[in-house]
Amino acid sequence: MTGGTSWPEGLEAAFTAYEDALARDDTAVLDALFEPGEGTLRGDDAGLLRGHDAISAFRSARGGIARRTIESVELRTLTDDTVLVVGVSAFDGGGRGLQTQLWRRTEGDWRIAVAHVTGRPKAFDRSVWRVVGDPLVHGRSTGADRSLARIRVAVKDLFDVAGQVVGAGNPERERSAPVATAHAPAVQALLDAGADVTGIARTDEFAYSLAGRNAHSGTTPNGADPTRIGGGSTSGPASAVALGQADLGLGTDTAGSLRVPASYQGLWGIRTTHGAVSRQGLLPLAQSFDTVGWLARTPDVLAAAVAVALPEADGTVDGGTVDGGTLLVADALLDAAEPATVRAFDVWLEASGRDVRRVVLPDLDDLAETLRVVQAAEAWRNHGTWVTAHPGALGADVAERFALAATVTPDDEAAARARLPELRRRIREAIGGGVLCLPTVPGPAPSRTATGPDVLATRRATLRMTAVAGVGGLPAVSAPLLRVDGAPVGVCFVGAAGTDRALVARAAATTRPTHSSHQPR
Amino acid sequence: MTGGTSWPEGLEAAFTAYEDALARDDTAVLDALFEPGEGTLRGDDAGLLRGHDAISAFRSARGGIARRTIESVELRTLTDDTVLVVGVSAFDGGGRGLQTQLWRRTEGDWRIAVAHVTGRPKAFDRSVWRVVGDPLVHGRSTGADRSLARIRVAVKDLFDVAGQVVGAGNPERERSAPVATAHAPAVQALLDAGADVTGIARTDEFAYSLAGRNAHSGTTPNGADPTRIGGGSTSGPASAVALGQADLGLGTDTAGSLRVPASYQGLWGIRTTHGAVSRQGLLPLAQSFDTVGWLARTPDVLAAAVAVALPEADGTVDGGTVDGGTLLVADALLDAAEPATVRAFDVWLEASGRDVRRVVLPDLDDLAETLRVVQAAEAWRNHGTWVTAHPGALGADVAERFALAATVTPDDEAAARARLPELRRRIREAIGGGVLCLPTVPGPAPSRTATGPDVLATRRATLRMTAVAGVGGLPAVSAPLLRVDGAPVGVCFVGAAGTDRALVARAAATTRPTHSSHQPR
Repeated sequence: MTGGTSWPEGLEAAFTAYEDALARDDTAVLDALFEPGEGTLRGDDAGLLRGHDAISAFRSARGGIARRTIESVELRTLTDDTVLVVGVSAFDGGGRGLQTQLWRRTEGDWRIAVAHVTGRPKAFDRSVWRVVGDPLVHGRSTGADRSLARIRVAVKDLFDVAGQVVGAGNPERERSAPVATAHAPAVQALLDAGADVTGIARTDEFAYSLAGRNAHSGTTPNGADPTRIGGGSTSGPASAVALGQADLGLGTDTAGSLRVPASYQGLWGIRTTHGAVSRQGLLPLAQSFDTVGWLARTPDVLAAAVAVALPEADGTVDGGTVDGGTLLVADALLDAAEPATVRAFDVWLEASGRDVRRVVLPDLDDLAETLRVVQAAEAWRNHGTWVTAHPGALGADVAERFALAATVTPDDEAAARARLPELRRRIREAIGGGVLCLPTVPGPAPSRTATGPDVLATRRATLRMTAVAGVGGLPAVSAPLLRVDGAPVGVCFVGAAGTDRALVARAAATTRPTHSSHQPR
Repeated sequence: MTGGTSWPEGLEAAFTAYEDALARDDTAVLDALFEPGEGTLRGDDAGLLRGHDAISAFRSARGGIARRTIESVELRTLTDDTVLVVGVSAFDGGGRGLQTQLWRRTEGDWRIAVAHVTGRPKAFDRSVWRVVGDPLVHGRSTGADRSLARIRVAVKDLFDVAGQVVGAGNPERERSAPVATAHAPAVQALLDAGADVTGIARTDEFAYSLAGRNAHSGTTPNGADPTRIGGGSTSGPASAVALGQADLGLGTDTAGSLRVPASYQGLWGIRTTHGAVSRQGLLPLAQSFDTVGWLARTPDVLAAAVAVALPEADGTVDGGTVDGGTLLVADALLDAAEPATVRAFDVWLEASGRDVRRVVLPDLDDLAETLRVVQAAEAWRNHGTWVTAHPGALGADVAERFALAATVTPDDEAAARARLPELRRRIREAIGGGVLCLPTVPGPAPSRTATGPDVLATRRATLRMTAVAGVGGLPAVSAPLLRVDGAPVGVCFVGAAGTDRALVARAAATTRPTHSSHQPR
């Protein structure tokens, strides 16, 4: 191994060709300069990509980098045909990057076999946060309740934080929104228990998406798997918690907006009983279903947040505490999930050692469609005036959803709304005082390179599963208990209204191995 | 080259020993596992360190990392004795890292020859920012003056930003400070010209230091050279601008707090004429010398900021516009600088093609000491009550400085204050309507591993050079025109009071090559 900057024949030209192709985002040349095959590696702060095709797909989606100039190069010649190149680059407009590349010569051509890239130093990841501080808002440092001391909270950009606006995931909305003069009660409760608000984290626009692909601030990273989307609409808080930049995410769930990112990123999450936690100071999407909830890496932090928000002991609705060890399962919900997810769920259920009782729910399409229509009517009533007044302000997918919402007629809405009480009653009867469990979503998070139609299809399939708690107005905990295709999928526990605290405890207990003979009944 | 995870003999043990040593921050073992010599490399988002000793010094100063678990390892066996290891690590508390290591076996021992590390994803660099947003405060999007549109501003944590507190670099102060209800005029002027406030950036505590080593938030990175300190007290804005995270830094300069980080990080910076820019909404350090100023990567952005703050055409003080091409030089100021800096300055001055006229200034020790005493008396008057009420709240160096400030007697202060007008008069007479130029500071920024006494010695030497503009109440532009030991050093242009705009133009013009025969007179 030698140092210095003595280039073997052809390598400097290849290195320069690579930098030139980067500058003009010539993905064909970049692809050609990476070794083909599954063994090629490229890593950066978003994670490690394995295989030429994964790297190529990433690059197509990236859309170029800031212009850089190579400031210095260190060469380590390892064999005649293998050289490690460590380059320091200076970006136009400030900041330096670092790239380590293992170049290999095959049949006369130099190509990169392994690359490790440190890009330009960003102030922060604007796909995750809109405003972030050290902290942004200090929690109370005195007081009776210190149960959330040292907990760092990422607040979804739908809640009032004093001194800040609610951006709701849209830059135009953000520019004209009024500055909040007080914290939303859901924020204040966390501060009063000693938690700090680290920042305001991203949401899908007006919370009207489950993907976490905000057209303005970008796709949030998936903290569990960098090749997949992170999910939404509580997208920023989920990524912040999964990446360790916050300990607790404060979010909302109308039709899955907390459960989906929890499942996608391997987090614990709860949507609370509809109406149990104050929605004051929260920008609504659809009041008939909107709920407040939280995300955390551990059930303990989640339970602490629920206890702060719901200090009264619960579990007294629908005839007593949460039922003992039995878990309820609805076959229709398993039919709605992907086969690999169902297999993982069945294995988990079997291993849990719990008794299982089958229950029958209302037709899932009926649930999803009824929720969709009422949600759309309310979303349009809440935001239609703004959307109409700001043509072109929304990303394509959310714009399309609002356009569809605008077409819901009063008759459509009245018909759907008339079905709600009956559907809700039937869901609540089926669950009774027990706990329904299901895979939170059909499968692992889609790839970051998934097309719009794919993501939309996932949304539709997801809503059939998430609508049960949505229409039921019931609390639902997503616990990171399954692995499918190497990625996390949650198990969702849906309980009776008002059993939120007990439900978290129950979900946490279920993750501990049990033997049916020792199981409390 | 082969893939997979087949470890050659001894490598897995060495790799594991390295991870174990990291976990317990055993720097001796870590040092032993890096190859000795100058060719060893270690890079991360702070830059590339070259040589075993530089790496060892960095590690000693770092003080350990968050606990991590290796999640996956990819091996690329390059020769019998050379293996590239790419490891993905999961940090306790969320987030993943990536490390690429070139391991080499010499006489049976495996050691790391090259390492590239991507650490845990931080929300943001808290040594640079206290609060940061996308943006934190939007500039006006309409208005007659759009001269700063798209300019991102880092505001030193001494200025009022509506909705935020002034932290002044101290967490205790920050916790109890009142929330500002309006922007400081210096902030408002930038917003009115279309600039966005990206965030509130760090300052040395109460701006009473030149080092940029805040005991609470850490040492700001030097955007020009990661092995050196960044300088202060306008530390965060300087780093933010040098790293490309902002385009303009709004700061203050009492005795060098803008000029020093500008010089250390290769930026353009100006301290304005004392009293020329409103200090309303600015936490004072020493009113007799405090000035507002800015930092930028280019003279154009700096000039735009000065024009916004000082819209009246200037350069009319002391008998007309800034003098033509002649530059004034004071030998005493060159004697105060390090020899390598003086050599670089002489080369630059010669190459500038300007006529040079020697001037004599008051004794530099007299200037520095007079400034020091009055500054100390005023600093204590401003903050002594707070400092006394919060024992232990300050970092050691600033605490010591305040302790010394407390010992300044009324007689000391009166004597120093009596000398000020005379010294100011003599400085202003020496400069007249011309431009004094000097190296901004004695030399390049000290190493990040410099000890407290070294940094203090640098401070003393620096104050002898910066006190000229400080005592004179004069504008001073630092331009990144020198390289000394591979690091930037500024050339400082000191002009007559009220010539701020002309001075920036003059400094910018001086960087362009001239021939004395074509030079305007």
